[in-house]
Amino acid sequence: DFAKVDHQRQLRTGFPEVVWGPGKTPEQIEQIVQALAVHNPVVMVTRVEPAVADILGERIPLLHYYAQAKICALLQTPLQVKHPGTIGILSAGTADLPVAEEAATTASLCGFKVEKIWDVGVAGLHRLLSHRALIQSMDVLIVVAGMEGALPSVVAGLVDCPVIGVPTSVGYGTSFGGVAPLLTMLNSCAVGVAVVNIDNGFGAAMLAGQILRT
Amino acid sequence: DFAKVDHQRQLRTGFPEVVWGPGKTPEQIEQIVQALAVHNPVVMVTRVEPAVADILGERIPLLHYYAQAKICALLQTPLQVKHPGTIGILSAGTADLPVAEEAATTASLCGFKVEKIWDVGVAGLHRLLSHRALIQSMDVLIVVAGMEGALPSVVAGLVDCPVIGVPTSVGYGTSFGGVAPLLTMLNSCAVGVAVVNIDNGFGAAMLAGQILRT
Amino acid sequence: DFAKVDHQRQLRTGFPEVVWGPGKTPEQIEQIVQALAVHNPVVMVTRVEPAVADILGERIPLLHYYAQAKICALLQTPLQVKHPGTIGILSAGTADLPVAEEAATTASLCGFKVEKIWDVGVAGLHRLLSHRALIQSMDVLIVVAGMEGALPSVVAGLVDCPVIGVPTSVGYGTSFGGVAPLLTMLNSCAVGVAVVNIDNGFGAAMLAGQILRT
Amino acid sequence: DFAKVDHQRQLRTGFPEVVWGPGKTPEQIEQIVQALAVHNPVVMVTRVEPAVADILGERIPLLHYYAQAKICALLQTPLQVKHPGTIGILSAGTADLPVAEEAATTASLCGFKVEKIWDVGVAGLHRLLSHRALIQSMDVLIVVAGMEGALPSVVAGLVDCPVIGVPTSVGYGTSFGGVAPLLTMLNSCAVGVAVVNIDNGFGAAMLAGQILRT
Amino acid sequence: DFAKVDHQRQLRTGFPEVVWGPGKTPEQIEQIVQALAVHNPVVMVTRVEPAVADILGERIPLLHYYAQAKICALLQTPLQVKHPGTIGILSAGTADLPVAEEAATTASLCGFKVEKIWDVGVAGLHRLLSHRALIQSMDVLIVVAGMEGALPSVVAGLVDCPVIGVPTSVGYGTSFGGVAPLLTMLNSCAVGVAVVNIDNGFGAAMLAGQILRT
Amino acid sequence: DFAKVDHQRQLRTGFPEVVWGPGKTPEQIEQIVQALAVHNPVVMVTRVEPAVADILGERIPLLHYYAQAKICALLQTPLQVKHPGTIGILSAGTADLPVAEEAATTASLCGFKVEKIWDVGVAGLHRLLSHRALIQSMDVLIVVAGMEGALPSVVAGLVDCPVIGVPTSVGYGTSFGGVAPLLTMLNSCAVGVAVVNIDNGFGAAMLAGQILRT
Amino acid sequence: DFAKVDHQRQLRTGFPEVVWGPGKTPEQIEQIVQALAVHNPVVMVTRVEPAVADILGERIPLLHYYAQAKICALLQTPLQVKHPGTIGILSAGTADLPVAEEAATTASLCGFKVEKIWDVGVAGLHRLLSHRALIQSMDVLIVVAGMEGALPSVVAGLVDCPVIGVPTSVGYGTSFGGVAPLLTMLNSCAVGVAVVNIDNGFGAAMLAGQILRT
Amino acid sequence: DFAKVDHQRQLRTGFPEVVWGPGKTPEQIEQIVQALAVHNPVVMVTRVEPAVADILGERIPLLHYYAQAKICALLQTPLQVKHPGTIGILSAGTADLPVAEEAATTASLCGFKVEKIWDVGVAGLHRLLSHRALIQSMDVLIVVAGMEGALPSVVAGLVDCPVIGVPTSVGYGTSFGGVAPLLTMLNSCAVGVAVVNIDNGFGAAMLAGQILRT
Ligand SMILES: Nc1ncnc2c1ncn2[C@@H]1O[C@H](COP(=O)(O)O)[C@@H](O)[C@H]1O
Ligand SMILES: Nc1ncnc2c1ncn2[C@@H]1O[C@H](COP(=O)(O)O)[C@@H](O)[C@H]1O
Ligand SMILES: Nc1ncnc2c1ncn2[C@@H]1O[C@H](COP(=O)(O)O)[C@@H](O)[C@H]1O
Ligand SMILES: Nc1ncnc2c1ncn2[C@@H]1O[C@H](COP(=O)(O)O)[C@@H](O)[C@H]1O
Ligand SMILES: [Mg+2]
Ligand SMILES: [Mg+2]
Ligand SMILES: [Mg+2]
Ligand SMILES: [Mg+2]
Ligand SMILES: [Mg+2]
Ligand SMILES: [Mg+2]
Ligand SMILES: [Mg+2]
Ligand SMILES: [Mg+2]
Repeated sequence: DFAKVDHQRQLRTGFPEVVWGPGKTPEQIEQIVQALAVHNPVVMVTRVEPAVADILGERIPLLHYYAQAKICALLQTPLQVKHPGTIGILSAGTADLPVAEEAATTASLCGFKVEKIWDVGVAGLHRLLSHRALIQSMDVLIVVAGMEGALPSVVAGLVDCPVIGVPTSVGYGTSFGGVAPLLTMLNSCAVGVAVVNIDNGFGAAMLAGQILRT
Repeated sequence: DFAKVDHQRQLRTGFPEVVWGPGKTPEQIEQIVQALAVHNPVVMVTRVEPAVADILGERIPLLHYYAQAKICALLQTPLQVKHPGTIGILSAGTADLPVAEEAATTASLCGFKVEKIWDVGVAGLHRLLSHRALIQSMDVLIVVAGMEGALPSVVAGLVDCPVIGVPTSVGYGTSFGGVAPLLTMLNSCAVGVAVVNIDNGFGAAMLAGQILRT
Repeated sequence: DFAKVDHQRQLRTGFPEVVWGPGKTPEQIEQIVQALAVHNPVVMVTRVEPAVADILGERIPLLHYYAQAKICALLQTPLQVKHPGTIGILSAGTADLPVAEEAATTASLCGFKVEKIWDVGVAGLHRLLSHRALIQSMDVLIVVAGMEGALPSVVAGLVDCPVIGVPTSVGYGTSFGGVAPLLTMLNSCAVGVAVVNIDNGFGAAMLAGQILRT
Repeated sequence: DFAKVDHQRQLRTGFPEVVWGPGKTPEQIEQIVQALAVHNPVVMVTRVEPAVADILGERIPLLHYYAQAKICALLQTPLQVKHPGTIGILSAGTADLPVAEEAATTASLCGFKVEKIWDVGVAGLHRLLSHRALIQSMDVLIVVAGMEGALPSVVAGLVDCPVIGVPTSVGYGTSFGGVAPLLTMLNSCAVGVAVVNIDNGFGAAMLAGQILRT
Repeated sequence: DFAKVDHQRQLRTGFPEVVWGPGKTPEQIEQIVQALAVHNPVVMVTRVEPAVADILGERIPLLHYYAQAKICALLQTPLQVKHPGTIGILSAGTADLPVAEEAATTASLCGFKVEKIWDVGVAGLHRLLSHRALIQSMDVLIVVAGMEGALPSVVAGLVDCPVIGVPTSVGYGTSFGGVAPLLTMLNSCAVGVAVVNIDNGFGAAMLAGQILRT
Repeated sequence: DFAKVDHQRQLRTGFPEVVWGPGKTPEQIEQIVQALAVHNPVVMVTRVEPAVADILGERIPLLHYYAQAKICALLQTPLQVKHPGTIGILSAGTADLPVAEEAATTASLCGFKVEKIWDVGVAGLHRLLSHRALIQSMDVLIVVAGMEGALPSVVAGLVDCPVIGVPTSVGYGTSFGGVAPLLTMLNSCAVGVAVVNIDNGFGAAMLAGQILRT
Repeated sequence: DFAKVDHQRQLRTGFPEVVWGPGKTPEQIEQIVQALAVHNPVVMVTRVEPAVADILGERIPLLHYYAQAKICALLQTPLQVKHPGTIGILSAGTADLPVAEEAATTASLCGFKVEKIWDVGVAGLHRLLSHRALIQSMDVLIVVAGMEGALPSVVAGLVDCPVIGVPTSVGYGTSFGGVAPLLTMLNSCAVGVAVVNIDNGFGAAMLAGQILRT
Repeated sequence: DFAKVDHQRQLRTGFPEVVWGPGKTPEQIEQIVQALAVHNPVVMVTRVEPAVADILGERIPLLHYYAQAKICALLQTPLQVKHPGTIGILSAGTADLPVAEEAATTASLCGFKVEKIWDVGVAGLHRLLSHRALIQSMDVLIVVAGMEGALPSVVAGLVDCPVIGVPTSVGYGTSFGGVAPLLTMLNSCAVGVAVVNIDNGFGAAMLAGQILRT
């Protein structure tokens, strides 16, 4: 009644509907998860705070909580790679990891191979350049950065695959909760940069998935 | 001296450097075009106003001006489709055509097949739904919309390929020069939506190209 | 002394003054409710947090608390439909329900018939289209949506009655606390869309009431 | 090709599609007008600058230009009132007249009776109060105001019909092109205020029409 | 060391330095109050939260806390009216009272006569108009309003003395923490409106004091 | 018809209605001036561009144009000082003169004595300090400043009369058309600072007049 | 793994990498500190809340916590002045001290001599002018100010060394979390003003260090 | 009268007052230049449009116009290097040259040695890295960039001297007239980055001068 589960989503877009946790009571989340589990081998809930995950874990024993990514998942078959290609995920700083892990966990749960390259921000360029070959071997890149958010621009100038920029709310003052890195990414001089919402690791992973399935 | 042409661009990213016209004198543009033409069969200049195009046309007789797209191009070999797949380009309204044409012209010049579907904004949903099969057969979609910019969300809910949303500055008052459709696209509930800068038809086409070449 | 109750409101506008809860102490709210109850069969207080509702409930035993809508109401006669016509209330997602319920509860308390259609956001258009006939039979529509807020535009393109768009603060990052859906609604290409403040379910219901009483 | 005329609009919403002039060439406008004229007795184009109106007037001799409202209209039957009720249109200052006239002309062309009450801003309240009886006799009100935009709030406190606030870009400095009156109207303490986009006299008239037809 | 008390303030501006409480530890506030008390009969601290007031009250027994105004004051001589003229203070709604009381308490402590007129917002204009004679007899007016903040404009159109508008952060959504009423007041069509910072009841009172001493 | 002249303004507020020029045709301005001239010895029109002033000058031969202030005035009696006290007007830079002159001309036309102190911005503090005695002898000060707009704060710390800060749109980049100096003035640490709209020299003069008449 | 310590930073820029505390778990901070301590005599962590400092203090006994500056530092050799020149640090108000102390502590830990001049805001100019000689003897100045942030402009007009302006989030309402003083500093009429992010005392100290080492 | 020339500026800050051209009439500029020329060997006017430069050139025959920098200068002694050290000036793109040249011309006129490195934006990193040794040999760097403005961050990570970031208004859409690169620079992860106003090449050069004279 409070939710109309979109059972056609899997057919239409290739992925099942994913539940957005905020603003739903644990009871509502539980009911939606149960409804989705009837038709889908993998059910995911994003943005779940630890306290809510505890309540859900008691009601749905098989539900697994990925704490850093804040994702709950119900896996009815063992997780495996289902699609060709690899998604490289880069983060600029350690504080960006929750968003980067949201992307990595989402991509893995959707059946994609993931390569993680953490803490390679532009203030010390040699860290990025020392991973150049690995980065250039990826099929699509998700680049997560807060503060000035310059990493996607620099990376896109080094590779020939699509780069998905994810601005994060990491920073203070004039980062304005992620607006600064968002604008940086939207104004990138380098070509091939796609941008998603601030902190939207989930959306970046789904977009990377759509690209690899193209 | 005033410009360091990036001759590695083609090797590194698969496309030659494209010249951004604004803020350059016709003399500067001419010199950069000549320098690029030595190594690249196709040279493009974007955002060229008609008066500038006239001056350039006199100096570089082979330069062609795509008036609606505001692109000048020097083609040293006949244009042909070089990559598999089709890029579908949708526009919400007639006033969005300059941006949609910038995307279409760029994509064609880079060797991609393009399908154009104009004036299918959400205020009359039947117009969009009547092209559903065609839209669903595309490999990647560029969706151009101003005002409220809702079209990419609705389209992304109908297809399983990546959707690149291009907000335009078409509108008035609270469209704030394209901020309204930009925010709409960044906050899309539908998954698989990549966003680029306001009026950036060029960038959308380059991103679509990177996706098809993946 | 701290409040001048507007006893002419009922005569002038057809509805009694409604108390806005925030920034008032429980003592102040109690006194205003008692003053209003002398002249009005229905007294409403909006935006009442549960803890405040508890205090008020102890002091005014007949006060009823609509928890999801965060409305306290004192009903001195049984609630009944007093006006012709039906107000259809649509919500885009489950997290928008508090705002949608504020609208629904307000409308019911003011004597209007309400039809609720929850969780029909544009990312899965078939959910909306499957309620098309019901939606088209309404006399006025309140459409509640957060994130990109595209639902009012799409709905207004399907019906010939006024559509009141209520943007909500549901979302994150570039939703900017409801600014994104607000701009979407203000820039709607579809005609017949009225917009109210972010999260203002109360105001939407009052406006719908004025429209039905026209 | 560049436009898909929405011939179902009249059936679906009760009004024919209205052409938005900006961003279209005179040629494009002419073709759309001709296409619409086949099925609709009244065809309207909004936001037409005088120079464009001249060109169109030469090509479509029957096209009439309402200069202050910047509307072109093709009337194939004499204009008459087709709907019951009266739309009162108030303007706060003389500089708001172009927007107020856009509303008035649109409403008249759509078959509604209009009453105009100009220059009754709140800085001299007696001007408004001296029209109180006339204002209270209207069925729906459109209130057009720039600068601080306080007029809709004050008016809505005096009447029991819906009030449509139209913020205008009249002002300077912190009016921010109409943002100041927009915010004033969205935050109105008075109930029954619907808001539309800045300078959107057209949309206000269409909304008033939908309300009267309810 | 952490503070250089401005002992010349009384001589230079007619009022002693007033301590701004936020961001200071209770220890710092205590020391500044003691330093100021040597030279000034009245010492004031603004924006003091109740918990801080408790600590201060224990250390400085004669310190009085005006709870609604959040002001602590050390009065070494009985409070009395020292200046001719009366400051009228109006508030639009009950939730604006803390700011209105900050103004009233500051003015009284500085030796001015104050008249309070609460809850006379523009949504019920008769409430304001019924106090017209009293309001017109004031020498300077402080008008405190949140939400749309239209009250100073309306009042300034009724009187011939200066009106100091104080926007408050009362409201939600597009009130943007007081930006909406601030813009309304800055764009006032009525003349004679001075504006101060959002929630700055203190500054309004000091300005009113300077005006009366002129 | 297009304007309702507010003949009560002089009685109610002590000054006649002043015509705001922008958005009015020369014909409209002429008619309003003629209507006002019947009852008022001084009629003023502000923000009149030179070309409009020329047209008006031909139609109303006695109309005088103050070019730097962009004010047209019809003086039916010789201008003289009618009120006690002096208004000091300071400008920070040469580019702020049009706004400062708008204030000075308005004040003079309304019968006030004016003292002008130009180009005393804070970057060279000795220029301001060398006029200290003169500034301290004024009854009310209008301080006009663009760019960072720090002058009113510094001045208010030196005097004991009210200071009216007028932010100007002089500057570039992050001055954001006057927002930077506006915020500076609203956040002034010094007490006794009243703020008006960006570039609103007229309003500052009217406010100064109300203060002096108190 | 979660962090790639930038061991080249000391060589490249003259200072070791400094750890930004927010968004890191105490465990992560501890590991990074230990890794940096192998190569660097001084290791610093900024923006450490007291509770985190307690945890870290238990794990790394030699770690010192500068409470007002919120900095943790591991000093493996006694602190001493290593560079010629003095950095003068001015603060406008007492509430700006945490930011000013962040700058002072950072500068001291990096081996610079620091002179502190607190609470010399422009509202009482004599406080600043009485330190004129001391201020003019500094080699570089860091000027910390919230609210209107006018102090750097005034100071830069008095000295011939570079002035680094640090806007703080001290203030309320239209200070917008430090945006007001940021804009003031960026628009300074005085020359020689460098600006850093809001509340960025750390960055100001590092910049001052780079300047002194030039 | 309209200007108080700051003859102490040279003594106080080491550079004469520089005239800001906008908002001054050619007559005013001429008089100020003549007044300054009495005491200063070099007089500069910034932001002079070509048409104004023509008028000035006729009145002051020795005035030289640097067209790309939009600077007029009166040189009464031959220009020579007066200070030790070199200022390196980098620009990201060709369209940033006017701002970069404003910095270069200002620095040269003030007696500094300048090294220009144009068009080394981050989208093709090899261009920057190939000038690494030259860049690292500079004493202070001015880095001019529009669009995403990432260049100062990347450069500051490669050098150990101060980096002055100058955001430019080059770009479109979400560059918001230079706000995007401004935020990028303010949020730089690399240390040692000073920021000045958008397009403020002049201020950057003056700041670099102050640094070199330290
Ligand atoms: N973290 C997330 N960010 C953005 N969208 C999400 C996220 N998680 C789920 N969604 C989308 O949110 C929608 C579900 O919303 P709801 O019906 O409120 O559960 C689906 O369309 C999901 O694809
Ligand atoms: N949730 C709400 N949102 C907006 N306005 C409201 C709300 N609830 C009550 N009001 C209005 O707020 C005013 C009451 O304000 P107050 O005098 O502070 O109680 C009345 O004019 C109501 O119509
Ligand atoms: N509530 C307030 N709002 C604005 N300014 C205030 C307030 N209370 C005190 N002040 C001013 O703040 C300054 C004191 O700042 P501080 O040195 O930090 O105590 C003085 O100039 C006061 O006039
Ligand atoms: N392009 C510029 N950008 C910022 N400030 C400037 C510029 N040119 C000159 N100035 C400064 O502006 C002030 C001169 O303002 P004015 O008195 O109006 O000529 C002086 O303090 C100069 O240092
Ligand atoms: Mg790191
Ligand atoms: Mg169309
Ligand atoms: Mg749902
Ligand atoms: Mg008028
Ligand atoms: Mg009330
Ligand atoms: Mg000057
Ligand atoms: Mg102090
Ligand atoms: Mg280039």
